[in-house]
Amino acid sequence: MELGFIGLGTMGAPMVLNLLKAGHQVRVWNRSKAPLDELARAGAQPVDSPIQAAEAEVLISMLGDDAAIRSVFIDAKALDGLAAGSVHVNMSTVSVALAKELAALHAERAVAYVSAPVLGRVDVAAAGNLNILASGPADALIRVQSLFEVLGRKTWHFGEGAELACVAKLSANLMIAAAIEATAEASILAGGYGISRGTFIDMITSTLFAVPVYQGYGKLMVDKQFEPAGFKLSLGLKDIRLALEAGEAAQVPLPFASVLKDNLLDGMAHGQGDQDWASLSEVSARRAGSK
Amino acid sequence: MELGFIGLGTMGAPMVLNLLKAGHQVRVWNRSKAPLDELARAGAQPVDSPIQAAEAEVLISMLGDDAAIRSVFIDAKALDGLAAGSVHVNMSTVSVALAKELAALHAERAVAYVSAPVLGRVDVAAAGNLNILASGPADALIRVQSLFEVLGRKTWHFGEGAELACVAKLSANLMIAAAIEATAEASILAGGYGISRGTFIDMITSTLFAVPVYQGYGKLMVDKQFEPAGFKLSLGLKDIRLALEAGEAAQVPLPFASVLKDNLLDGMAHGQGDQDWASLSEVSARRAGSK
Amino acid sequence: MELGFIGLGTMGAPMVLNLLKAGHQVRVWNRSKAPLDELARAGAQPVDSPIQAAEAEVLISMLGDDAAIRSVFIDAKALDGLAAGSVHVNMSTVSVALAKELAALHAERAVAYVSAPVLGRVDVAAAGNLNILASGPADALIRVQSLFEVLGRKTWHFGEGAELACVAKLSANLMIAAAIEATAEASILAGGYGISRGTFIDMITSTLFAVPVYQGYGKLMVDKQFEPAGFKLSLGLKDIRLALEAGEAAQVPLPFASVLKDNLLDGMAHGQGDQDWASLSEVSARRAGSK
Amino acid sequence: MELGFIGLGTMGAPMVLNLLKAGHQVRVWNRSKAPLDELARAGAQPVDSPIQAAEAEVLISMLGDDAAIRSVFIDAKALDGLAAGSVHVNMSTVSVALAKELAALHAERAVAYVSAPVLGRVDVAAAGNLNILASGPADALIRVQSLFEVLGRKTWHFGEGAELACVAKLSANLMIAAAIEATAEASILAGGYGISRGTFIDMITSTLFAVPVYQGYGKLMVDKQFEPAGFKLSLGLKDIRLALEAGEAAQVPLPFASVLKDNLLDGMAHGQGDQDWASLSEVSARRAGSK
Repeated sequence: MELGFIGLGTMGAPMVLNLLKAGHQVRVWNRSKAPLDELARAGAQPVDSPIQAAEAEVLISMLGDDAAIRSVFIDAKALDGLAAGSVHVNMSTVSVALAKELAALHAERAVAYVSAPVLGRVDVAAAGNLNILASGPADALIRVQSLFEVLGRKTWHFGEGAELACVAKLSANLMIAAAIEATAEASILAGGYGISRGTFIDMITSTLFAVPVYQGYGKLMVDKQFEPAGFKLSLGLKDIRLALEAGEAAQVPLPFASVLKDNLLDGMAHGQGDQDWASLSEVSARRAGSK
Repeated sequence: MELGFIGLGTMGAPMVLNLLKAGHQVRVWNRSKAPLDELARAGAQPVDSPIQAAEAEVLISMLGDDAAIRSVFIDAKALDGLAAGSVHVNMSTVSVALAKELAALHAERAVAYVSAPVLGRVDVAAAGNLNILASGPADALIRVQSLFEVLGRKTWHFGEGAELACVAKLSANLMIAAAIEATAEASILAGGYGISRGTFIDMITSTLFAVPVYQGYGKLMVDKQFEPAGFKLSLGLKDIRLALEAGEAAQVPLPFASVLKDNLLDGMAHGQGDQDWASLSEVSARRAGSK
Repeated sequence: MELGFIGLGTMGAPMVLNLLKAGHQVRVWNRSKAPLDELARAGAQPVDSPIQAAEAEVLISMLGDDAAIRSVFIDAKALDGLAAGSVHVNMSTVSVALAKELAALHAERAVAYVSAPVLGRVDVAAAGNLNILASGPADALIRVQSLFEVLGRKTWHFGEGAELACVAKLSANLMIAAAIEATAEASILAGGYGISRGTFIDMITSTLFAVPVYQGYGKLMVDKQFEPAGFKLSLGLKDIRLALEAGEAAQVPLPFASVLKDNLLDGMAHGQGDQDWASLSEVSARRAGSK
Repeated sequence: MELGFIGLGTMGAPMVLNLLKAGHQVRVWNRSKAPLDELARAGAQPVDSPIQAAEAEVLISMLGDDAAIRSVFIDAKALDGLAAGSVHVNMSTVSVALAKELAALHAERAVAYVSAPVLGRVDVAAAGNLNILASGPADALIRVQSLFEVLGRKTWHFGEGAELACVAKLSANLMIAAAIEATAEASILAGGYGISRGTFIDMITSTLFAVPVYQGYGKLMVDKQFEPAGFKLSLGLKDIRLALEAGEAAQVPLPFASVLKDNLLDGMAHGQGDQDWASLSEVSARRAGSK
């Protein structure tokens, strides 16, 4: 297929490599030029503007946040490059409000807009094992399914509305954040009695919670290894804010998310914004007098 | 070994069967007489009072809560049956305060007091696969290790203080409760946008949270199958209260536990006390206008 | 002085009457035409567009929310009516972000922008007894002080930044909301023991909290008289959201505000959006099983 | 009347002086002997044991907490001094559970038990201007009303149950704590934008919240004058815990109280236990990075 791909960060670049390996032609654009050489050597075709990248049968975007999407698609007019009948698959995690706005803007141009945020970090993306949370027009989802099979191991469908896959992704991230906070509170409670945090977290992540989410974040807490961040606390705050906004729009109280927001802000106020969000444990420890 | 065993409920009875199979002699007592016949047929020796059960080399107790422990050991004087030099292994989940009080009462009688609450439900107990969280005097822990190997697959040691294993257990239960609440909030948020709760929970428990805790409670939420309860909401409230009390005594703020307590009370006030605590999802749903 | 006044709702109309009585000339504009006749009879000069109203020495605006301000000043270009050297006094309660944006837009036009939200309801406005929370350029504040003396009994200065008076107003509203929630929780707790809510609220508002805020909202709770609303729950939610946004931008955790947001959403989800926000007591009562 | 009075602390001593001035005979007992001389000079009759103090027509007690009450009435057997037909007026703030327990113990002895905690600090007690929150048997309340008129300016009746006045007192204290926390959050939010906390608190306590509770605590926050404490943060924590226990027993979620408990624990963990509970503002400030 003739593809465009916008956003060649740590996630986007290995995804492009997988698409190339699968035999697709990919026009690529990124704000910084750093990733382009390697991708060009692998067969990708760098272009000079997001508009040119968008002139494809299917455009995939993988950008950091709402502001980056707006900057590329609205300010830099990538939208204008999309031809009627093409599909735009936005794999970024964006707000419910932006998903709805983009769906409307694409509909005006007769372009199908598919939301497809993913679960999985860089190594999972490189292995083509992402879980893809998808929503959008049914026929567009069928058209891009073969691409999803290259990029991920499973696609989960949430319906027609562009916002639905975003809501599912934000809900999943809320659960990750809650797992971190729960591990933090429980281990600080144990630590308050002199129990080694490492022993407690080893026990809990070998028994009830023997999955990478708990094991990985638990280890970061024990080792106090918060930099370089796998996922920055400041980005965690953004995702929790988006979950709360989604909750507000649907009139759903989310008291755990509210606690998380306050604790993430506490972390921000103490210079933890660039640390991994596992450092929520430091917020708990600090409040307890650094036990 | 000559053992005593007090508390033959759904957990205690299969534990006694495992001890008998391993060749131990077990004097058993229970408040209600219902479980005694089967255990007697398997070789256990029913006795008429908790004092008689306590006259053993090692006494194991598995009772429901602080009140049951007080009733048996203090009011009904089971403590008086314990000979100097014997060991009492209390596998019940009790409060930090009671653990400390019992340790002192046993020390007065030169009886070693071991806290050993467990992770695992009835089927795990029957299979001898419990995870045993233990704390107490080091020599006593060595003496009872062979029993722990019969009852469980792994023993986790938390130190000398009787309260330490209790704190670890309460911290673990706090994490279970938080997992339930997080799943509830996230799935109600998804549901607020018309996403099927089943689809969302299937996705999340097949990917990030593919462990029995999330899968089991998630399924109960989707099926709204809250009775008969695997673990009653009223008991969950008790454990969260004990975690909060432990936090207060150690000056550890626990905002997730605080949210859980309020939501469990909301459940109690709506007649959910005898339901499985997975019905926290109904609290979230109700607050959101039953989305 | 030659004044313009935009926004002639329940607050704006009596404020214009006071300005007219004090001898000022006032050009008035409102989206709906209903209030214009009475004000014209009192000497105001209705104009056809917000741009015309803005062509004045000092323009005062009193609109409902950020969206209304944007609609009038940006979409309907009222900004373009403001001459260099004039002053715009915005007495609406707006977000910190919009206050900063407006200050910048006015500065480009060499127009002084003053934030001046008020404390006080309709009767206080009519009596010219508002408390005016003001921030903006010092010389502009001096120029409009005589107007503030007509409209209010006291002006409180918070500094130069346009956002400062907004922050002070949002902080004050947070305190009002907290007073309502505290009264609700305390009276439902008392009610949970069979104490008459009326007796409890009478006691507390005759002793420790003998001020109109508590007395007024307490009476509404006792009488369950939530309609017509003095201040709608949906508007309360908006103000708490703005306070939380202000907190997030300044990295200030606000756990009471977080509880308020969740409870206000609970109210929204149960059809209380048009009720007075005193009906937070119904949220508390409902959660407690309608005690 | 022949009275006994137990508990001659900062509140009890001036209350005894008022009773003496009104012509009553008062037998007094206190754990420490320090206050006895002054009271004896004023006409009180010191006795050697709480039992002797209890041998009176009406016994009044004013002690610090549940533990002090238990120590005096149960351990030191003051209960045994109460003659059938006498009345015990307990003006201490105690838990709901203890109030019920004491009511039952008194009933066994045919002694009427009246709960009568008060609103007001030392100066109010000295002026005989306390607000007295009372509950208990109707005839006993009538018998002691003349004493209440000496000690306070108004008696508020909450019914027959001994626990009712305690619940009302705990609910009132919850409202005070919430007022402190709300003032703290709002002023730290303002401070986060560079607004002087003093200016903000001056404004809010001159307008919406012009009552001594807000004015007094607000001033302590601005001056950071937390010692000597008017009411210690550790005692505030105790009262909030009692309110939460009362809420749990009646199945009433109290999310503000939950936030308060976590924040008070944060204060305890940072050495603020002996400071005035107005230092909740320091908890908010610390979480916000000491803005």
